[in-house]
This record gives sequence, structure tokens and C-alpha cells, in this order.
Amino acid sequence: MCTIGGNIGTASGGLCCVKYGVTAEYVLGLDVVLADGRLMSTGRRTAKGVAGYDLTRLFVGSEGSLGVVVRATLALKPQPPQQLVLAAEFASAAAACDAVCRIMAGGHVPSLLELMDRTTVRAVNELTRMGLPETTEALLLAAFDTPDPAADLAAVGALCEAAGATQVVPAEDAAESELLLQARRSSLVALEAVKGTTMIDDVCVPRSRLGDMLEGVERIAQKYRLTIGVCAHAGDGNTHPTVCFDAADPDEARRARESFDEIMALGLELGGTITGEHGVGVLKKEWLARELGPVGVEMQRRIKQVFDPLGILNPGKLF
Amino acid sequence: MCTIGGNIGTASGGLCCVKYGVTAEYVLGLDVVLADGRLMSTGRRTAKGVAGYDLTRLFVGSEGSLGVVVRATLALKPQPPQQLVLAAEFASAAAACDAVCRIMAGGHVPSLLELMDRTTVRAVNELTRMGLPETTEALLLAAFDTPDPAADLAAVGALCEAAGATQVVPAEDAAESELLLQARRSSLVALEAVKGTTMIDDVCVPRSRLGDMLEGVERIAQKYRLTIGVCAHAGDGNTHPTVCFDAADPDEARRARESFDEIMALGLELGGTITGEHGVGVLKKEWLARELGPVGVEMQRRIKQVFDPLGILNPGKLF
Repeated sequence: MCTIGGNIGTASGGLCCVKYGVTAEYVLGLDVVLADGRLMSTGRRTAKGVAGYDLTRLFVGSEGSLGVVVRATLALKPQPPQQLVLAAEFASAAAACDAVCRIMAGGHVPSLLELMDRTTVRAVNELTRMGLPETTEALLLAAFDTPDPAADLAAVGALCEAAGATQVVPAEDAAESELLLQARRSSLVALEAVKGTTMIDDVCVPRSRLGDMLEGVERIAQKYRLTIGVCAHAGDGNTHPTVCFDAADPDEARRARESFDEIMALGLELGGTITGEHGVGVLKKEWLARELGPVGVEMQRRIKQVFDPLGILNPGKLF
Repeated sequence: MCTIGGNIGTASGGLCCVKYGVTAEYVLGLDVVLADGRLMSTGRRTAKGVAGYDLTRLFVGSEGSLGVVVRATLALKPQPPQQLVLAAEFASAAAACDAVCRIMAGGHVPSLLELMDRTTVRAVNELTRMGLPETTEALLLAAFDTPDPAADLAAVGALCEAAGATQVVPAEDAAESELLLQARRSSLVALEAVKGTTMIDDVCVPRSRLGDMLEGVERIAQKYRLTIGVCAHAGDGNTHPTVCFDAADPDEARRARESFDEIMALGLELGGTITGEHGVGVLKKEWLARELGPVGVEMQRRIKQVFDPLGILNPGKLF
């Protein structure tokens, strides 16, 4: 649910990034209207090109703060074959994260590798009556769109079992695969339904720290007496801890914001970033400064100054 | 033959980019000493991250003009399987370029797809006595490091034949593959040996214009009475027309420079860029300005000004 412009504005990611990379990697060139009304073209329409500074990448993810993108040249790939999905249940989040590391270190290239924690699984069941296994502590979904996806799923299934999976269920066909993905795609809506409002974190950590991240989020949920469901682009180490709260309850809303911040602090502590794919906007301005440090912020502000000396482009965002 | 620092400085490419992308895509974060002596960290060490403007990509390919890179965090991939190479001979460069388009449009993902024109093939034979087929107008090398490279080579061989290949020779094993690649790797040294000196263009065009590019270079070679050999990362549309000349002959040196420039003009005319992977340096400063246009140059200069107000970093390059 997004536009190409929104994708470019926030340098978005998603489920398929673990194999195909993020939006930024597909933007070859841009036409941008600058703050003074002039039109500037960046980049190229060839597969490769290094003529001057990479202003295309500077604009991708700049959240509308440097200029208005009015045209984009995108790289296209041939449509991949239909993917086949496997679901694996684990008795602990740590075991699921261990499986993720084994899969990625083994040279496998899944077209997606997603994780849903118990809270998320239960929320999805509550909303959709899908009958997902509620006893699982973490559900891992792996997919392959390779020439022989069944063989790849078998190899990855064995790695999941080696990491302690209690059950491994490879889909038999496209329809079964789609059903499993539907569970993942329902996650955020399902978590929203828990308390009416959510704040969605977007912390990305080195893959090896994914287990520490999930454990920490559970600790934070207990500390603040909140429901926090985690779904994650696990192959990328990109987690979306989703804080569920009642916006009409001021105390709960305060605890939600504090837990949201504490999750970002944990991400930075684990060597990660406050935003893997969603961007900064208003909510994470203070945290952007923490992540970049004073020199980084100063240089970023000076670039903003070059392109938008009057501060008329998406004011109040990022910095 | 390069360092990681040099790779980052020029955002280099090479033979494997058609499948694996360029250097820039593997640089996650940098430590940079700024012109005023302060240290700035950019980027991240996670698979994904969009915290603020992408200064990492701004520095990659900036040719030392914005700061001194003192540390880099690189993304690593598991080592791919041994690749298997196929050689295909063509009676015209146009037919070889047609084959390239058929291969890439067909959803095949070669680990390299290289083209050597007749001039290059002859120069390599002259230097190495490899006995490459001198009657070919263009030699195409395709490789796959997939689970079943022989099957992929068979499919690509059929596409080459459909495009008019006069001979298709798949390597039987790694040793034969390495021998074929040796021919490609000897190309620049062989072209250097022709007249003692070369100027190597680096024009990248949309893949569909590759045939026009090769035809144009041949026309330019005739016009200036020079030997210009072309080897190309054909899958990327990235050509290296290599002008061979005797630096001690002032008239020939002048013609070499004029033909070198005319090749860049042709590249821009075909919708390409003056540099796919080598960068600008001193030689292509004027051409960079032509490619970027006045607004682009102004904004790039202003970014340079932000990072290097005194102009002490690699002065005289790029602009």
C-alpha cells in the first residue's frame, strides 16, 4: 500500500528486500524541482553510471526535505517465478533467530524470511480466525522463487530443525504459500485491532543480534505493562516491534511512547539503526540526532541548507 | 588490480557487476576525516538503514574530493559456486549485441556477460598467442555460477544461435572457463601493446543501444585513422572503447584525444553516461559538466563547498 513517490521519499523496504534489496537500489535517476523552482536531473538511465556525486541516492529517502521529485527512472527486473513458502514453529524466539542466522550464513537466498512472534500470531488469529499455532513462541516464514524451490525449502527446513524447530511445514503449492503469507500480511492490522492504536518501531540490527533484540523487546513490554508484537524482516535483521495501546488512556499513551523510545535505544545499543526502512519524520527526530552524532547532524543540516535555504520543503521533519 | 579505498573512491565496477552490482552497493558505512580534521561516521552496519540523508553513497565515487575515507563497513556475500563460461562468435557486432539483449530480456542472470570486438581479439592473439578466432567480428563470453550452470549455458547458447552466432563453445569445466576469461582479462594489456599508449573510454549506454555504440566507435576509428578496440561489460551496456596511439607522435596524440571525446559525445547522444565505472578525474571534467547540465553542476559544486570550503581535497578533479 504505497506510491512510487512515497517509496522514493522514504527509501522503503519490505518483504522481498532480503533477496532483491530496497527501493533505493532500483532508482537510477530523478527529475527534481528544487526549492527555487529550477528543475534538476540526477543520475542516469543506464545500468551503471558514476558521473559526479550520487545526488539520486541523496534524494532517495530524504523525505521530501530537499526537493520535489517529479520523475523517476527505475530499474526493472524480470518477474521472478512463483515463490514457495515454508512455515517453521519454534519454542523460543532465540531458536528462531538462530535458524535465521544458519539460513543466511549457509549461502541460501530466500525471497523472503519473515518472523512473527507469539503476540503477533495470537493477534492474527484473533482477527482472522486463521488457526495459526498459538503454542509457538515464534513463527518463521521462508520462501524461495528459485528454479527448484522445493529443494531449497527442504534444505532450509533441515536448518530450522537443526536450530530446534518444533514443526516445519512446507507449502505444497502457490495457494498454500499465499495463505501463509496472508498471515504475515495481516500482522499490522491485527496488532492495530488489539488496542485501537499502535506505534510501529523499525529498528534494524546486525542479524546476529536479532535474538537479543527480541528478548529485549519482551523485557520492555513487561516493564511498561504493554502488548508489543514483533514481526520482522528477519533475514535483514529488521524488526517492527509494534506497541499496542489505547490512545484515550493518557497513562498508557505515555508508557507506549516511552517503550517505543526504549526499543530504539536498545537497537542502537545492539549496533543497529533506529530506522531500517520507514524513515524519521517527526517521531524519531531526536533519535536521528543520537544515531548520527553531532558532526553527522551538522553536515546533514548543511546539505539541507544547500537545497532548501528558506526551509520551505517539508518543514519540521528529520531535524 | 585495485584497493578497497580506490574502489570506494571511484565507485568501481567490473566483470561481475551484471549479476552482483557495483562497489557502491556493498558499502554500508564509512568513517571519514573531513577537511577540517573532524571525524564523521556515515551509514550503518546493518543490512538496511535509512536514518537521514545517504552520505555514504555521497562519498562513494566522490574521488577523494569530499573527505578522506579511513574506515569502511562492507556487506559480504557467501562465495558463489565456480562459474562456467561460454564463448560465442558472431559475424557482426550488431548480432552479438542482439544476443546480449535476448539474454538479458529473457530473465537469465549471467555472472558475467562480456564482449570483445575483432580489434581486441586480434590484439590479445598478438600478445598472448592464445589462438582466438580472428575471423570473428565479436566474441561474447557468458558465465553462470548458478546451481546448474551447464543448463543455463545451453539456454544462452541457443539464444546466441538465434541471434546469428557462427559458433558457440561452452567450456566443459573450470579450467576451460578460466582460459576463456584469461582472454578477456588480457584485453587492456594487449591493446596497450599495440601502440604503447591508450586512452580508455568508459561509456555506458542503455543496453538496447549497445549495437549503435559499437558501430559508432568503428566509424570514429576510421575517421581518425586510429586503432580503437572495444571490450565491454555488455550485460550492463558498459563499453570500454580503448584508443591506441603513439604518445610520441603529436598528431596521433591529438587525434586520439579528439576521438576519445567524440566517443563520449556519441555515448551521451545514445542516452548514456560518460562514465559507467571509472569516474571523472581530470580527463572528463568538461564532459561531466555537459552530462550534468548547469543546475546539476551548480548543486554538486555547492556540496563540494559544504565539505571542502578551502578546496584542499583532491583539488582540480571532477569540476
